[in-house]
Amino acid sequence: MEKYTKLTDKDISFFEPIYGDRMLLDKEHITDYTHDETEDLQFYPAVVLKPINSQEISQTLEYCYNKGIPVTPAGARTGLSGGSLPVLGGVLLSCEKLNQIIDIDERNHQVTTEPGVITQVLQDAVKEKGLFYPPDPASRGSCFIGGNIAENSGGPKAVKYGVTADYVLNLEIVLPNGNIIWTGANVLKNATGYNLTQLVVGSEGTLGIVTKIVLKLIPHPTNDLLMLVPFYNAEKACEAVAAIFRQGITPSGLEFMERDALIWTQKFTNDQSIHVADNHAAHLLIEVDGFDSEVLMKECEQIINVLDDFETDEILFADSAAQKETLWSLRRKVGEAVKAQSTYKEEDTVVPRYALPLLLNKVKSVGESYGFKSVCYGHAGDGNLHVNIIKGDLTDHQWEHELPKAIREIFTEVVKLGGTISGEHGIGLVQKPYMDIAFPEITLDLMKSIKKVFDPKGILNPGKIF
Amino acid sequence: MEKYTKLTDKDISFFEPIYGDRMLLDKEHITDYTHDETEDLQFYPAVVLKPINSQEISQTLEYCYNKGIPVTPAGARTGLSGGSLPVLGGVLLSCEKLNQIIDIDERNHQVTTEPGVITQVLQDAVKEKGLFYPPDPASRGSCFIGGNIAENSGGPKAVKYGVTADYVLNLEIVLPNGNIIWTGANVLKNATGYNLTQLVVGSEGTLGIVTKIVLKLIPHPTNDLLMLVPFYNAEKACEAVAAIFRQGITPSGLEFMERDALIWTQKFTNDQSIHVADNHAAHLLIEVDGFDSEVLMKECEQIINVLDDFETDEILFADSAAQKETLWSLRRKVGEAVKAQSTYKEEDTVVPRYALPLLLNKVKSVGESYGFKSVCYGHAGDGNLHVNIIKGDLTDHQWEHELPKAIREIFTEVVKLGGTISGEHGIGLVQKPYMDIAFPEITLDLMKSIKKVFDPKGILNPGKIF
Repeated sequence: MEKYTKLTDKDISFFEPIYGDRMLLDKEHITDYTHDETEDLQFYPAVVLKPINSQEISQTLEYCYNKGIPVTPAGARTGLSGGSLPVLGGVLLSCEKLNQIIDIDERNHQVTTEPGVITQVLQDAVKEKGLFYPPDPASRGSCFIGGNIAENSGGPKAVKYGVTADYVLNLEIVLPNGNIIWTGANVLKNATGYNLTQLVVGSEGTLGIVTKIVLKLIPHPTNDLLMLVPFYNAEKACEAVAAIFRQGITPSGLEFMERDALIWTQKFTNDQSIHVADNHAAHLLIEVDGFDSEVLMKECEQIINVLDDFETDEILFADSAAQKETLWSLRRKVGEAVKAQSTYKEEDTVVPRYALPLLLNKVKSVGESYGFKSVCYGHAGDGNLHVNIIKGDLTDHQWEHELPKAIREIFTEVVKLGGTISGEHGIGLVQKPYMDIAFPEITLDLMKSIKKVFDPKGILNPGKIF
Repeated sequence: MEKYTKLTDKDISFFEPIYGDRMLLDKEHITDYTHDETEDLQFYPAVVLKPINSQEISQTLEYCYNKGIPVTPAGARTGLSGGSLPVLGGVLLSCEKLNQIIDIDERNHQVTTEPGVITQVLQDAVKEKGLFYPPDPASRGSCFIGGNIAENSGGPKAVKYGVTADYVLNLEIVLPNGNIIWTGANVLKNATGYNLTQLVVGSEGTLGIVTKIVLKLIPHPTNDLLMLVPFYNAEKACEAVAAIFRQGITPSGLEFMERDALIWTQKFTNDQSIHVADNHAAHLLIEVDGFDSEVLMKECEQIINVLDDFETDEILFADSAAQKETLWSLRRKVGEAVKAQSTYKEEDTVVPRYALPLLLNKVKSVGESYGFKSVCYGHAGDGNLHVNIIKGDLTDHQWEHELPKAIREIFTEVVKLGGTISGEHGIGLVQKPYMDIAFPEITLDLMKSIKKVFDPKGILNPGKIF
């Protein structure tokens, strides 16, 4: 399948009795579903369907499988790699009505949920029971847990608590041919056959549609401390990150923001509460959490000792819940702020964390030779640097034809440093031209063959990853 | 391939110049390689080859792939599911000479190692740098890290720190056709294509032969406290496990031992230092670890408060490193002790931890109706119960023909409770007749098709899992 697929009247009359007013056909209502948060890309599906259970999805996929109709699953469409864009038309299957938390199992520290639950809603619900679901992408207030599983989302807490994949115990999925299976079991350890669960996590909706999710939970920490550290030199900030870990401390957040990331976000949010001096080149936002405030104070003291070697300006300790929220909110809104001010492309590079200064250097030098500015920020504790490339003065021709070469240079360096081209955003549509940098053909062929095992006709989320 | 494969003179003369005296042909020298720690099973390969690098493995696999010769990879052969048994003859490929720790990367908290390194040797080497590789199967003093990856091994620390899979960042594998690939990248988060790394972990050497391993490390905790808690009632001990977690405490070990497990092991090790009273039905071995001894003392107090509700006898606190080692050693040797005293079968059941008392009950009631005794112990914190079924007075006919029905009953209950049939030992040879309990045919077919993607001719570790 490579061209846009329209639907026939026969197709529509198959879907109509199942979906009723949960089927959208007219352009006006469909428009919302034509984009996610990836650049300014827009693709129209032929129809939007909003199933309310696995059985409807099964019926729909079985039909589309037999007819060869492309099906693109969508969550909250907050993705940054175009994973939910219906690039070949056909059916856009929105999981928004699969929005129930099915069971919070306090005894076993597990939650079973549908995919269309907003991540933060899920986090708040389990927190009420003293439990913690740590993965917290910046979009957690609007993204769906199902989308987090599709992209293997991370977020600031990943540095201590791991990414989405680390919490997924078991998944109910509907296969492209309509079969419904569970991938594993509701257990903390499993050595029973191949790990289909982890194969589906991060597969960007290309292997099956996730309809039920069993997640591991942990006890919710009761205390945290947060500090913002201004550096006169951005590379030194990156180096400090590795040094903190070498002290044996594992912060629950260790975020890097270049000067412009903070400045632009302050402007965007109209919040000037943090003073950024002229000679502040970058900031680290450092959080520790746990169950004992004395231990946390000790950890902060150790961190400050480490930072002594890295020429920082005065460290700001958040002294209230409100100030913590202000700082985190600034960090979470960097992406939005950059987007609001310029045409841009966001790259989601990840390297072993010690290599972060080298990566930052490379990004800047490539930028100089191609004539673009970049705003860099991200989860420095994981070596995960978001590189926002600003169009600025580049011509459309440069943006479309020269920039990909620059990105190629950056990604090549990333892989040379032991890293890879996406840490938490996925490959989706926009990064697939670069997959050959991450993997040789033999490996890509293995992945494509796995795709064929699940989806021999290639109907599910076509045009993604490969 | 379903029958025993001998090698021709031509085959041998292909291997000879590569392997020289690292090739074993005569029965006497091969005997060591005919068994692992699974029951008393024994299978002779046609030849044992001991490669020293990926290239030799590549050459060997390419040759065997073209000729359709089965290749069974073997590590330290400490497995409990028969994963390394060359059931169809052919080549046994022993990874014992791939025994180098390639690089301990202190800056990034990673280690790169070959598969034939003994797990404890690896743990000790990184501990010298203040780093921690937590997964610690009972056999850690003799098993290989490569075997741990094949079976996704756990161990007592898994309850707090996770299993082998949680530490594997990247793998170099040789595919059955001889191609060498890396499965991922040396990074803490990765959303780049399908997760081949996690597909290979736990695949029991059926998809490729792991030749290099990049593992995540964490700071090594500096303190731990250990206590042994005698219960008058085994079910109450199981219930206490869930109750401890509900208090928000995550012990670094939470092991369950039935009375007989301890008694048999004391007899086996000739160590009577722990007094087991007549009315002690079971024990919990509980460890907490961290970086602050005051915090650990507080956690122990909280645990003791929880245990107050469960009628325990006097709690033994290990008051020296030697006593801790005695207690852990007793726990680690239960399997060996049972094996030394009777023909037995070991089942590796795992359920959500709150279901543990129900599972224990079922094991005992099935035992009563089939007339066998069992010794149960294991990682209660993970809901992972090892069930050692003792042959005792059962006839050979009952052992071979009736017992499988009993195991089927137990496994069926396990799956009903949300669990599965292997937590950390793998399926290998001995559990494969039960895979239909864990997964329906559709799911097994998916797994078999994935196997075919990697190994269309089925040469690699044939006769395992499915």
